[in-house]
Amino acid sequence: MSNCFEIKCSSSKSLARSGVLHTAHVDVVTPFFMPVATKGAVKFVTHPQLQKEMNVECLISNAFINYLKPGLSLIEKAGGLHKFVSWDKALFTDSGGFQLILDQFIHKVTDKGVYFKNPFDKSIELVTPAKATLIQNSLGSDVAMCLDHQPLFGKSRVDYLDSAIRTIEWAQECKKAHEENEGKLNKKQLLFGIAQGGVHKDIRCKCALALHKVGFDAVALGGFGIGEAQVDMYSIIKEVKKVLPENNATYIMGIGSPIEILNAVENGADMFDSAYPTRMARHGLIFTHNGQIKIERAFHKDFFIPLDEECDCFVCKNYTRAYLHHLFKTHEQNGLMLLSYHNTYFITNLMKEIRVAINENRFEKFKSDFEKKYSKKDN
Amino acid sequence: MSNCFEIKCSSSKSLARSGVLHTAHVDVVTPFFMPVATKGAVKFVTHPQLQKEMNVECLISNAFINYLKPGLSLIEKAGGLHKFVSWDKALFTDSGGFQLILDQFIHKVTDKGVYFKNPFDKSIELVTPAKATLIQNSLGSDVAMCLDHQPLFGKSRVDYLDSAIRTIEWAQECKKAHEENEGKLNKKQLLFGIAQGGVHKDIRCKCALALHKVGFDAVALGGFGIGEAQVDMYSIIKEVKKVLPENNATYIMGIGSPIEILNAVENGADMFDSAYPTRMARHGLIFTHNGQIKIERAFHKDFFIPLDEECDCFVCKNYTRAYLHHLFKTHEQNGLMLLSYHNTYFITNLMKEIRVAINENRFEKFKSDFEKKYSKKDN
Repeated sequence: MSNCFEIKCSSSKSLARSGVLHTAHVDVVTPFFMPVATKGAVKFVTHPQLQKEMNVECLISNAFINYLKPGLSLIEKAGGLHKFVSWDKALFTDSGGFQLILDQFIHKVTDKGVYFKNPFDKSIELVTPAKATLIQNSLGSDVAMCLDHQPLFGKSRVDYLDSAIRTIEWAQECKKAHEENEGKLNKKQLLFGIAQGGVHKDIRCKCALALHKVGFDAVALGGFGIGEAQVDMYSIIKEVKKVLPENNATYIMGIGSPIEILNAVENGADMFDSAYPTRMARHGLIFTHNGQIKIERAFHKDFFIPLDEECDCFVCKNYTRAYLHHLFKTHEQNGLMLLSYHNTYFITNLMKEIRVAINENRFEKFKSDFEKKYSKKDN
Repeated sequence: MSNCFEIKCSSSKSLARSGVLHTAHVDVVTPFFMPVATKGAVKFVTHPQLQKEMNVECLISNAFINYLKPGLSLIEKAGGLHKFVSWDKALFTDSGGFQLILDQFIHKVTDKGVYFKNPFDKSIELVTPAKATLIQNSLGSDVAMCLDHQPLFGKSRVDYLDSAIRTIEWAQECKKAHEENEGKLNKKQLLFGIAQGGVHKDIRCKCALALHKVGFDAVALGGFGIGEAQVDMYSIIKEVKKVLPENNATYIMGIGSPIEILNAVENGADMFDSAYPTRMARHGLIFTHNGQIKIERAFHKDFFIPLDEECDCFVCKNYTRAYLHHLFKTHEQNGLMLLSYHNTYFITNLMKEIRVAINENRFEKFKSDFEKKYSKKDN
């Protein structure tokens, strides 16, 4: 394990901790949340809004999607993914493992790798662990993720065991390919393994420990956010952490709701990514300090208050729910921009508050106060 | 005619002039261009981007659309349209006359007024000139526009004459209603007449003169941008100006392309509005100092230069054509945000350059230099 992660403050009352992830482009303070820029852009939120107005220091993009379009040769010609998308802060790339659960992408999985369907031209292509790694080497992201095998939620224990074993085998191939290609574009590119195993603690822990032994910069937890009970996720995080070194940068993939983040942080999680905040915004589901609201409800039609009176984003400082309700109901995409901005700001600001609370050793109080207000009935 | 408009500098070589339009909310320097916020929001561009980053001081919204949704009572409850949409600079409202040429809105026109189809519930509603005025009084816009009768392009001379006569009659009713309702919300709301007559100079001039005699704050020219030859428009502007006082604030409705604006300004036009810049952006047609480009062309796929090397908007300072081509081709709406921003910035910046050139008495040189570069073949 490399020294990519340093713990700064640890809570005296829980497993929560703050720290720093050192990447080639920038040091990112943890715990942090990465907005998702699958095709190189966050939906309805611009880079300057993220960087300058929200102090977002890390995005995640999708290696496989970028590989298909615009294609590796173009991105190499641009000088790497950072340059192609004009993002000079930290950048993770997911290998495409998550696409395994999406019908539009998956053809079949064998021990060799994943046979993907190219959604653009319907061709079938084998992506091996080595190839998934090579793609990310070429993209030059700061953190590359191993190709993992994520089963659909609700599969049998045997399926989870199979996928965990395959994930470990693939991870070894990823590691080998990464060492062979090291320094191609980003000499300090980190490589994280991804522990699978669903909600089976023993499988998760064995998978995580095996990956740790392979020697990754960190071991992440994948396969959440697709149907499992939240409490199962929290206890899995807690158990997995027991078998890993304390300074393993604990990245929980695919998690982006305020309550899940708070609970994961309490159990020692350090980083998150999810399209949840922006996707929810496009559906009119808005985070506020007093719980989630549905902006399309008639209730908001003549409600001349901000989305969230405790939020200081430009949307909350400038606009009323009545106006945003109007834009949403009349399908004005300007409304989706404003709602996506707010939800992204909210979650980014929550991470900042979490970090401050941990540093001041009052995270648990902060969490309980936040949850008490947030769990109000949907209004 | 009121003293709402002051001329500051007049060109010694053409009819171009700079000036100031005094409105209840803000003084707006002319010539200016108004982005269109039909439903209270410019498509894909936020108010802070317009106000703070582009110094846009005036928008135009649609009175009839606002009347239908969200409805007058809600906007009155909010304290007027400015407050409802959170815009504290100048705001024009169009009466809805332009919708007369759109099938989805028009049922029939009689001397009484316009029978509109409500596109939301398919009901038919008569909007009289008085009602169109009353709606705008309730909205509290800074400049209300008379209900005018705009024939479809290509109708016979008799049709244009009929519509001009009807426009004059309606304008008198608008004026009467405006006087009766004056001060309802915006005590200094201006009321502009709209001269019709297509490309028939005699009809246009008679219509404009008749409207001037009714006593509006200014007489605008409507019905352009729907198919007439550009040269016809320029000569109409020139002729109409001869029959109106020099200090008539000359608003050319529905015009938004760089070349048309430059030529109209040369003939004495002071203000413009059009959805053209943002609509073109959504179609990937981009304004640059070297002419219009189509971002979807394969030509731009690996072109790592800004949209416009002479533009200093954040899109041109941060992104390449290659990236914007990628976003456009993969239908990322983030790309439409960036392209809409650039086109709006470009036209807003052009207006600033026009004003400076007029004030320095070098507008004609500026225009000819701009046109020479802009008229390059589409690249």
